[in-house]
Amino acid sequence: MHETTPAAKAAAWLGNFAERLDRGDISGVLELFAEDCYWRDIVAFTWNVKTLEGKEAIAAMLEATLAATRPTGWTVTEASGSGLEPVEAWFTFATGVGKGTGILTLEGGKCRTILTTLQSLDSHEEALGFTRPMGVRHGADRNRKTWSERRAEEEVAYGNGADPYCLIIGGGQGGIMLAARLRQLGVPSLIVEKNAKAGDSWRNRYRSLVLHDPVWYDHLPYLPFPANWPVFTPKDKMGDWLEMYVKVMELTYWGGTECVSASFDENAKRWTVQLVRDGKPVTLHPVQLVFATGAYGPPKLIDLPGASGFKGEILHSSGYSDGSKYAGKNIVVIGAASSGHDVSVDLWEAGANVTMVQRSPTTVVRSETLMELAFDTYSEAAVASGIDVDKADMMGAATPFALQPMKQKALYDRIRARDADFYRRLEASGFLLDFGPDETGLMMKAYRTGSGYYVDVGASQLIIDGEIGIKAGVDIDTLTPGGIRFADGTEIAADAIIMSTGFQSMHEVVAKIVSREVADSIGTCWGLGSGTRHDPGPWHGELRNMYKPVAQENLWFQGGNLALSRFFSKYVALQIKARMEGLPTPVYAPPLK
Amino acid sequence: MHETTPAAKAAAWLGNFAERLDRGDISGVLELFAEDCYWRDIVAFTWNVKTLEGKEAIAAMLEATLAATRPTGWTVTEASGSGLEPVEAWFTFATGVGKGTGILTLEGGKCRTILTTLQSLDSHEEALGFTRPMGVRHGADRNRKTWSERRAEEEVAYGNGADPYCLIIGGGQGGIMLAARLRQLGVPSLIVEKNAKAGDSWRNRYRSLVLHDPVWYDHLPYLPFPANWPVFTPKDKMGDWLEMYVKVMELTYWGGTECVSASFDENAKRWTVQLVRDGKPVTLHPVQLVFATGAYGPPKLIDLPGASGFKGEILHSSGYSDGSKYAGKNIVVIGAASSGHDVSVDLWEAGANVTMVQRSPTTVVRSETLMELAFDTYSEAAVASGIDVDKADMMGAATPFALQPMKQKALYDRIRARDADFYRRLEASGFLLDFGPDETGLMMKAYRTGSGYYVDVGASQLIIDGEIGIKAGVDIDTLTPGGIRFADGTEIAADAIIMSTGFQSMHEVVAKIVSREVADSIGTCWGLGSGTRHDPGPWHGELRNMYKPVAQENLWFQGGNLALSRFFSKYVALQIKARMEGLPTPVYAPPLK
Repeated sequence: MHETTPAAKAAAWLGNFAERLDRGDISGVLELFAEDCYWRDIVAFTWNVKTLEGKEAIAAMLEATLAATRPTGWTVTEASGSGLEPVEAWFTFATGVGKGTGILTLEGGKCRTILTTLQSLDSHEEALGFTRPMGVRHGADRNRKTWSERRAEEEVAYGNGADPYCLIIGGGQGGIMLAARLRQLGVPSLIVEKNAKAGDSWRNRYRSLVLHDPVWYDHLPYLPFPANWPVFTPKDKMGDWLEMYVKVMELTYWGGTECVSASFDENAKRWTVQLVRDGKPVTLHPVQLVFATGAYGPPKLIDLPGASGFKGEILHSSGYSDGSKYAGKNIVVIGAASSGHDVSVDLWEAGANVTMVQRSPTTVVRSETLMELAFDTYSEAAVASGIDVDKADMMGAATPFALQPMKQKALYDRIRARDADFYRRLEASGFLLDFGPDETGLMMKAYRTGSGYYVDVGASQLIIDGEIGIKAGVDIDTLTPGGIRFADGTEIAADAIIMSTGFQSMHEVVAKIVSREVADSIGTCWGLGSGTRHDPGPWHGELRNMYKPVAQENLWFQGGNLALSRFFSKYVALQIKARMEGLPTPVYAPPLK
Repeated sequence: MHETTPAAKAAAWLGNFAERLDRGDISGVLELFAEDCYWRDIVAFTWNVKTLEGKEAIAAMLEATLAATRPTGWTVTEASGSGLEPVEAWFTFATGVGKGTGILTLEGGKCRTILTTLQSLDSHEEALGFTRPMGVRHGADRNRKTWSERRAEEEVAYGNGADPYCLIIGGGQGGIMLAARLRQLGVPSLIVEKNAKAGDSWRNRYRSLVLHDPVWYDHLPYLPFPANWPVFTPKDKMGDWLEMYVKVMELTYWGGTECVSASFDENAKRWTVQLVRDGKPVTLHPVQLVFATGAYGPPKLIDLPGASGFKGEILHSSGYSDGSKYAGKNIVVIGAASSGHDVSVDLWEAGANVTMVQRSPTTVVRSETLMELAFDTYSEAAVASGIDVDKADMMGAATPFALQPMKQKALYDRIRARDADFYRRLEASGFLLDFGPDETGLMMKAYRTGSGYYVDVGASQLIIDGEIGIKAGVDIDTLTPGGIRFADGTEIAADAIIMSTGFQSMHEVVAKIVSREVADSIGTCWGLGSGTRHDPGPWHGELRNMYKPVAQENLWFQGGNLALSRFFSKYVALQIKARMEGLPTPVYAPPLK
């Protein structure tokens, strides 16, 4: 009777769950789960980012972690659902070292999915709101250091006798957000970045770049974009925001600094990192080393036969910034994913004759359509209904990767029906369209390979109209002095060739800075192990090597788009803080390659 | 029966009020008011900032404004109160040109106070949230201007053929907040500021300065301080925030620019303003001219007999920034209000021997006590209970100035009882303490004269301990070569004298830039006309000349602390926007001197 509301159902289930966990009754716990069940844990039980799929995996995880985790205080905080829909409930809990939150879904009284996340470490809570710093020590003090004096000391300390506990290589959004979280947790950290200033990684990109994701999806921690911020952030405005954010969050940020090498001392449990800062060598000895060198690693270049005889310019899209010098010229863009499209539009706007060479099919989805159908939890309407960005992130994290293709397939069925005419016209231009190997669309491609998709903000119409030429599905035979000859014998004249061919795995940066051996022991980053093209198995169920312990001790990967960087930066920071404080952090399950 | 809840009582009253306003039945309206009643209107009925005190004044205002205002749609949005307490209700309404909100209080079924404010102009609403800008025009465009190109054009337009509609003299917090509001309303505006960079007006102050008001009271519009911001903002951190804010809000801000002169052309209805920007003359012709040159105007210097024979240094506190060169020296600080105390502590911390010369009694209140007793609506607890800064501002504005002394007196009775021991010890040091002519404390002094008070963050203990000397209540006879001789024959040795003697009225800046005649026709700024010391009558019931039309057409004063600047910048911006759009803005009641 009293178990008819979603909250009551969830509370009853959680009560049973807690009681069985409490007495270590793992088989009793398993009885509460559906056959097809998933437990995603982020740092609470496993000190890892891990999805356990099925009862057997859950049992093994609990056998290994339950005694050390000592979970208590399971409490439902919010629940929804009806007789027809699954019950979805938010809950809080505590572990031996901190506080956690999670989301569970019940179907027919059994748990289908559960997410458990660590949110804070006891006695190391962030100083926010009620516990924010005072900013001044009242009273007079002849040894007073002012805020600006303390900041100035921090700025010069590293490299002058002091070492950061954590060194973050890469000062784009991923490194910056992680450093902000670490600072809140009192972890001495330093960001080193090749570019001169924070934000330059955005400013240096091509002229017309704007974020393809809307503002509600892009917030940084602690300081959300204001209500007058545009839906799609122009690149230079994003650059300014990041630069400002670094200052406001009081991060120590070395621009103009290249990381040359890093080696880990197994005895001292510290890194020796060689840097070149403004041309001068600096050696640091951080305990933790984070690679936040960009979503996907260094540019991926492809072999172009005959390149030595080509009279024009060949560059990678990452080196392309301004199309004005190509006005009136014939430009071939190789690659038809996001940057291929953006660069082509930029060139077209500059007055170039552009042909895009498409080597494999691309998933295209119109921005407007995504906004309406896919960003429901990241929107002004969501905000108005009480779903802020942190809540939306948790909702997103609650669906295990294994169940996402099904949801995404349904979404893309709607998208394809809605925009059928658009897709028909796009294909009529010769453009090769796909929605992924299993018709699951853009997001799954992003997780699996980080490539092969485009959010249409205007290029597709130019392709449909023939303003941007398409050469699709034909191999390049060779470059000629004046262009490209294809396997079908056709030729395209080219004054310049821009390879929009994507990026290598981040682990290639590790090979360059640490060693090939360490990089190979870690394996590649990103991808789920889906067994689809460019994402070989085995199945991981999580992003490979991202945001969690890897085969190399005290080495971390942080990156991804703004949303992933925001969400996971919290958990990377907690993992690092726990290690700094000497808390036990037994990692469940060895790192998968 | 249905009128027993506060909301029902308020709705019933507001229904009667609306109906009588609707049929122009002013005497019927007056029947709904208590005898001792107040109507504060901010730009909704009067196009002015005006409190009407009593039925006669309300009747006169309605006679003059009702037909033009055409108020409709009065709706209660929130109400509180009980049988014992007055009913307090929030409401919304519309006028012929825009939307408004207000707060009313009912006692015994009659209205005791009502606040009406204009919040937006129809068809000129700010682009926020659901209506935020897109940031990009999707689709390809060969004439595309990127965000940074448009911003760059804006930055160079003024002085190269284009004129701002509104020129703001002074780029501290007051000018910056107003410019942000104006930009949201699409009013082309330019800030000109003497200092090189936004934020320098804070950075250039003395080393140990921190805001005396807590963070919850200090937010700027649109972009509140984050949850990790300190309670008391250090001056350089404030400087950085203002500099960042100018960039994020996309304000056009000329640093290193002095305003030399301004004259109004009565025919063209434009100003001719002579500026010197980085040493070069620039002439602009804005329609509106805003003085935002600091809370109170230029430094106030006092005559010191014998100054020419004094061998040491004499400076005003506004020119004091670093005490280190005074270590071991004898320094006399003349003035015992906020800057006198702060400068004395800064000198003491630097190792100087400091004596404070107190010419008249000072109101002192401990920061901790203010935080606990006076900032109840600006606190983390308030935020947690749903009172954000905008709501708190409206709550503060709902009490007319005439009723504030009573409330403040009660507050200071509590403060004096609580800190009796502290005050006893402070007076025992020779310090002259007061709580204003009517025992109403700090806030009323701030409104009436902007001087004569100190929020204790540490100086008082140094005075109690004799670490900072006090020479109180004795006139200065003359400076001697080595110090100061007083009327009682005593002498104090001084290597330097720092005049912490406050600031002149802002209208002195007008005298310097426009003319003495115009300045005198306007009269002084600030003060209420309370008839107390330095605040001569007649009674204004509002701050003199601030935030509203003055005797000189198209000239405005904007300033005050962060909270007043924040709140009133909205209404100054709406008044200026309405004029730019050519809306009728009949100002009720001629400006009082």
